Amino acid sequence: MLQMDNVKEAVTTAWDGFKGGEWQDEIDVRDFIQQNFTPYDGDSSFLEGPTEATTKLNDKLVDLKLKERAAGGVLDADTKVVSTITSHGPGYLDKDLEKIVGLQTDKPLKKALMPYGGIRMAKEALEAYGFEIDPETERIFTDLHKTHNQGVFDVYTDEIKSARHNKIITGLPDAYGRGRIVADFPRIALYGIDRLIAAKKEDFKNYGDGEMTDEVIRVREEISDQIRALKDMKTMAAEYGYDISYPATTAKEAIQWLYFGYLAAIKQQNGAAMSIGRIDSFIDIYVERDLERGILTEKEAQELIDQFTMKLRMVSFIRTPEYNSLFSGNPIWATLSLAGMGMDGRHHVTKTSYRFLNTLHNMGAAPEPNITVLWSANLPESFKEYAASVSSKSSTIQYENDDLMMKTWGTDYYGIACCVSAQPIADGVQFFGARANLAKTVLYAINGGVDELTKLQCGPAYAPITSEYIDYDEFMKKFDDMLEWVADIYVNALNAIHYMHDKYYYESAQLALKNTVLNRTFATGISGLSVAADSISAIKYGHVKAIRDEDGVAIDFKADNDFPRYGNNDDRADEIAVWLVKQLYTKMNKHHLYRGAKLSTSVLTITSNVVYGKNTGTTPNGRQKGKPFSPGANPAYGAEQNGALASLLSVAKIPYKYATDGISNTFAVTPSTLGHDEETCDKTLVNMINGYMKNNGHHLNINVFNRDTLLDAQKHPEKYPTLTIRVSGYCVYFADLTKEQQDDVISRTFHDHM
Amino acid sequence: MLQMDNVKEAVTTAWDGFKGGEWQDEIDVRDFIQQNFTPYDGDSSFLEGPTEATTKLNDKLVDLKLKERAAGGVLDADTKVVSTITSHGPGYLDKDLEKIVGLQTDKPLKKALMPYGGIRMAKEALEAYGFEIDPETERIFTDLHKTHNQGVFDVYTDEIKSARHNKIITGLPDAYGRGRIVADFPRIALYGIDRLIAAKKEDFKNYGDGEMTDEVIRVREEISDQIRALKDMKTMAAEYGYDISYPATTAKEAIQWLYFGYLAAIKQQNGAAMSIGRIDSFIDIYVERDLERGILTEKEAQELIDQFTMKLRMVSFIRTPEYNSLFSGNPIWATLSLAGMGMDGRHHVTKTSYRFLNTLHNMGAAPEPNITVLWSANLPESFKEYAASVSSKSSTIQYENDDLMMKTWGTDYYGIACCVSAQPIADGVQFFGARANLAKTVLYAINGGVDELTKLQCGPAYAPITSEYIDYDEFMKKFDDMLEWVADIYVNALNAIHYMHDKYYYESAQLALKNTVLNRTFATGISGLSVAADSISAIKYGHVKAIRDEDGVAIDFKADNDFPRYGNNDDRADEIAVWLVKQLYTKMNKHHLYRGAKLSTSVLTITSNVVYGKNTGTTPNGRQKGKPFSPGANPAYGAEQNGALASLLSVAKIPYKYATDGISNTFAVTPSTLGHDEETCDKTLVNMINGYMKNNGHHLNINVFNRDTLLDAQKHPEKYPTLTIRVSGYCVYFADLTKEQQDDVISRTFHDHM
Repeated sequence: MLQMDNVKEAVTTAWDGFKGGEWQDEIDVRDFIQQNFTPYDGDSSFLEGPTEATTKLNDKLVDLKLKERAAGGVLDADTKVVSTITSHGPGYLDKDLEKIVGLQTDKPLKKALMPYGGIRMAKEALEAYGFEIDPETERIFTDLHKTHNQGVFDVYTDEIKSARHNKIITGLPDAYGRGRIVADFPRIALYGIDRLIAAKKEDFKNYGDGEMTDEVIRVREEISDQIRALKDMKTMAAEYGYDISYPATTAKEAIQWLYFGYLAAIKQQNGAAMSIGRIDSFIDIYVERDLERGILTEKEAQELIDQFTMKLRMVSFIRTPEYNSLFSGNPIWATLSLAGMGMDGRHHVTKTSYRFLNTLHNMGAAPEPNITVLWSANLPESFKEYAASVSSKSSTIQYENDDLMMKTWGTDYYGIACCVSAQPIADGVQFFGARANLAKTVLYAINGGVDELTKLQCGPAYAPITSEYIDYDEFMKKFDDMLEWVADIYVNALNAIHYMHDKYYYESAQLALKNTVLNRTFATGISGLSVAADSISAIKYGHVKAIRDEDGVAIDFKADNDFPRYGNNDDRADEIAVWLVKQLYTKMNKHHLYRGAKLSTSVLTITSNVVYGKNTGTTPNGRQKGKPFSPGANPAYGAEQNGALASLLSVAKIPYKYATDGISNTFAVTPSTLGHDEETCDKTLVNMINGYMKNNGHHLNINVFNRDTLLDAQKHPEKYPTLTIRVSGYCVYFADLTKEQQDDVISRTFHDHM
Repeated sequence: MLQMDNVKEAVTTAWDGFKGGEWQDEIDVRDFIQQNFTPYDGDSSFLEGPTEATTKLNDKLVDLKLKERAAGGVLDADTKVVSTITSHGPGYLDKDLEKIVGLQTDKPLKKALMPYGGIRMAKEALEAYGFEIDPETERIFTDLHKTHNQGVFDVYTDEIKSARHNKIITGLPDAYGRGRIVADFPRIALYGIDRLIAAKKEDFKNYGDGEMTDEVIRVREEISDQIRALKDMKTMAAEYGYDISYPATTAKEAIQWLYFGYLAAIKQQNGAAMSIGRIDSFIDIYVERDLERGILTEKEAQELIDQFTMKLRMVSFIRTPEYNSLFSGNPIWATLSLAGMGMDGRHHVTKTSYRFLNTLHNMGAAPEPNITVLWSANLPESFKEYAASVSSKSSTIQYENDDLMMKTWGTDYYGIACCVSAQPIADGVQFFGARANLAKTVLYAINGGVDELTKLQCGPAYAPITSEYIDYDEFMKKFDDMLEWVADIYVNALNAIHYMHDKYYYESAQLALKNTVLNRTFATGISGLSVAADSISAIKYGHVKAIRDEDGVAIDFKADNDFPRYGNNDDRADEIAVWLVKQLYTKMNKHHLYRGAKLSTSVLTITSNVVYGKNTGTTPNGRQKGKPFSPGANPAYGAEQNGALASLLSVAKIPYKYATDGISNTFAVTPSTLGHDEETCDKTLVNMINGYMKNNGHHLNINVFNRDTLLDAQKHPEKYPTLTIRVSGYCVYFADLTKEQQDDVISRTFHDHM
């Protein structure tokens, strides 16, 4: 057993009452959870309301957030001190009231300065909000220290730059933290930092057989950086008055310890998604022990969960306007995964799963943390209904198919990174990769690689289709060639990005809280799936005529005949969507993938469906130039004619095996469609989710409201300051969306019959 | 032809009068030289003395240097501004008198701050001379920017650290610039920066087929860094009032342009050796053209060469005391390679080769530049004798076998990097690797890996030899195992070092002036070759008894019989030395070598023979604990019994094929041995060098003086302020050596019979 003498006693006390197991000999949080957690089959009646302290703090926070919105998005920002784990002294919302402490900087909502991703991005983000970067700091990251962004642009080919410029690939994490690493934060609480350092030192000793290949050198350096980050976490916690060298001894400490890990992560990285993971069963074990010991009441337990959750609601990064146009409402994806099953057949619904959902009642709806219920047919009905009831009241929950993910990823200790991407918490990481635009690829195939908007030769100059009517067979050959090119450019842009991210912006804090030997996924993404599928269907079945401008570029299309569309449970169209996913995957998988990562893809656009649509010309399916794509894997706007269930069945056909980073389906239903009283409503929702998941559907955002509500909120934002809706993979205050995005949400399909 | 319109005219003017060739279409300095240089077969009678300006400047410099020595080594140092190509404004010795301008910082001899190699090293170097590093700069390179040194120690294994600590491997470039890159500085003069940038952009476009493997990414980033460095060189030159965008049009500009390249290199890197290369033929072409055009006199030509050489004499870096104990006298190896042959059979002795030697008359002897004559049997006698005469007067020249090197390296456009290492100038680089201690390896084999001084188990714990008398066969098996271990540890330490150097301290300035596709050599080195060879010979022929201390460690040896020693042209001993070199090479070559570099080794200790000896116990050949090794490939002190020629013949047996980084032989002879008048003396020297080279000897340092001179100089340093001697691979002011090193030099063999 790897353990130092001076921590032995502390460990014995901290672990008192826990059932032992392998987790005592090795770092293995999963084993600890499996040995010690208590599944809860009861209902929500045990839940408590907020304490006075929580309410006071929450009022203060809501007030600050509204002020922040009124101020245009940022109240204060650091312009000089580079954010590191130890860069700032302690900060509080209200020190006397806070049970869980720790802010990103020294003041609530004050944004940190994070230049490692890219100094220009950091500078422009500040300027967008009226701040000026400190010139000396700018000089350091211009003359003395290269950034991730500079590194990437130092190696990009002209072709990659052009693909980026013409928006056939968009949102690449080449100027900020890539994020999407779910660290095993509970490790700090269970083992204390000293033990984690000792384990990493042991890994360092045993990494490589002495032959210093590049990869051995790289990993050894990373372990050293991780050990440094662990030491920094101790320093940071000490400034808040806590010694996290040793394991946590109470529920309060357990939550505080793991939050310090998360805090270190967000002080070091402005990642595209900084998810908190799957911590409900873990925390519940400590709460249960404290309750049994009589040193904690339910009210106090809820207070800890509320205040911890409040901390997650406070996290934010300062971003440029371009970034915000891709990801509206400044999400940070503090994604919190709840419930799910264990591989031994026991479900992981605990009282703490309930307590986390209860935070939405105690503190009102909010976009963060991004609450994700890992849904299984075998979860207790009472919990399913409780979650559904929260959904229909606040539209803040997403559901993901635990049965499918557990089977695919081979572990029950996974969490959701960002929107919909499962990730083994002990040893999985994702190289985040934004999205390729398949709708535009269809147009490039027709136009011989000339961009239909910029008129630049972006793709390879293959012969365009010149006939008036588009021949399906001719098109398919050209589409295949163009898809090959997109796959090549896309994968290689990502290879460059992740090499440089590891080099200039390595996530030592998060990776210190993971195993040393990692399973990496190379995460690509698709946007415009439905538009591309319907366009190909149009060409195949619709006898499509191309209308060309003076440059010979097809700028409009007319289909003589009707054609099947994806989203109506019609295999003729749905199979095209399935084929597209498999085809792109297969072509990408031909290529070298950085660090031997395993290829994965997602059908997920977040809110970039609007920007992607804006940058894509009229498509053969009849979608007009500049109009938004549907989000994620959703059927194209207006395509769905057969009701909610047919739509769900179509999306469920997209094979998760090829899209293990997730298939996002954003669903809006009017309350009246679900039933006339609350209970029926919740039961209908539960049945709908059950049905979707049984058919291998992967993910579902549930929004329950009428279009009229949104129209009213658009007109009278002051009436709906915290109206929260689910967009593709996350939650957002409706008021934080741009007018364009609000219009997009309003124009989406609201299912009014099943 | 790759050439931009706006430079066309400038180029036409600059190239007027030159014979065209491939060099006009591609970057190819060698072709330009071969097409245009004028071999000179005459004698030295055309040479001119210094101009008044030169003498004034030189007096000023010598005065400053003496003041610097009196001040303990450093007069002034930058403690805050990090040295980069553009970090400092222009600096002058005396602006009105200087024909060639450019200093490392804003003041003569003021040391630059170079933290990229290692912040602790930079800090300690300053502190050693009474300066304090600026705390903010220290913080930047501690908290925000990792250094090469930190990177290396982040990955070293305990075993490597132990090998380093126990000094079986010493002098590793893991805390400062590795140096040893001879850039093709004439490129700037011949083409101007703009053309070089255009060529690098073309290389960038064509590097890799789009598949972003790690190595493709790495090289592409390097090219981008190189382009940035080229732009910085323009900025730096502009501050001195020169526009180096375009080619040089006169000899003065040619020298100034190429010196700006060198200046950029030394402002960016504090490399272990910053060599200037082989520039005599190149410069001569410009001088000849100016002389013909009547715009330059011989006096003025010499002035340019003198003042340029003076600039090379001024270069220095601030170092820690440990560094100085390895490389005494603060050498920077501005190694200047002169003469040699062309592959077409024409020799490369030009008037400018003479002019460079003449600087030693015009400005007195000095250690830098490290003047190296590339010796061939076919060089004109007049030049050979002139060089010999300079040698016997100043002991400042080394000779290297051009016939051997040209054949081995396959080009006549190579230069010497550092002491003795040939390097193709257009496309060769060396990964510098210090030395492994073979004498200590002998002791480790006997003592089962226990260090004889520290008593630590440093090597693997193989069974030691326990018998009183050492059995040769038993020893050889153990030695083979131990050598295997040394080879492994050594190569892998270097793999780590060069990975980190590329990552944190990349030589973008020097490599901007080389081809993009490089041939890399992985340079290892041997110290204690003669001691190891004689020790093995003792064990084989001498019936050696081991005397052990209470720990069972052999601390003394007695040979019952006499045994052959390396250095007497006795194959029994010499073949052991040859075998050692081949054996270590073969074992090292089993391993992964960073970036596919080709293994090479050197038998060269610089002045570290003293430190190595200090850290090595008594050896079976009778050398006492702590006593210095002989330098480089020299026979052990006291071993030579058969005179100068026998000694030379022994060293010449070491196969250059296995030791392409050079085999250094430091030779001291008393004037009277050479002859009774100056002419005989010079002729004897020429014959000696010719004989050595004909026998495939690689390198010879020639010192001509009596032991008494050195003894007197040790007692009365004020009488000999600029007494210069050649140590292993470079020159040094005798007064700048430590007492210990002076004693070592004095105790070396002074050949007094041939």
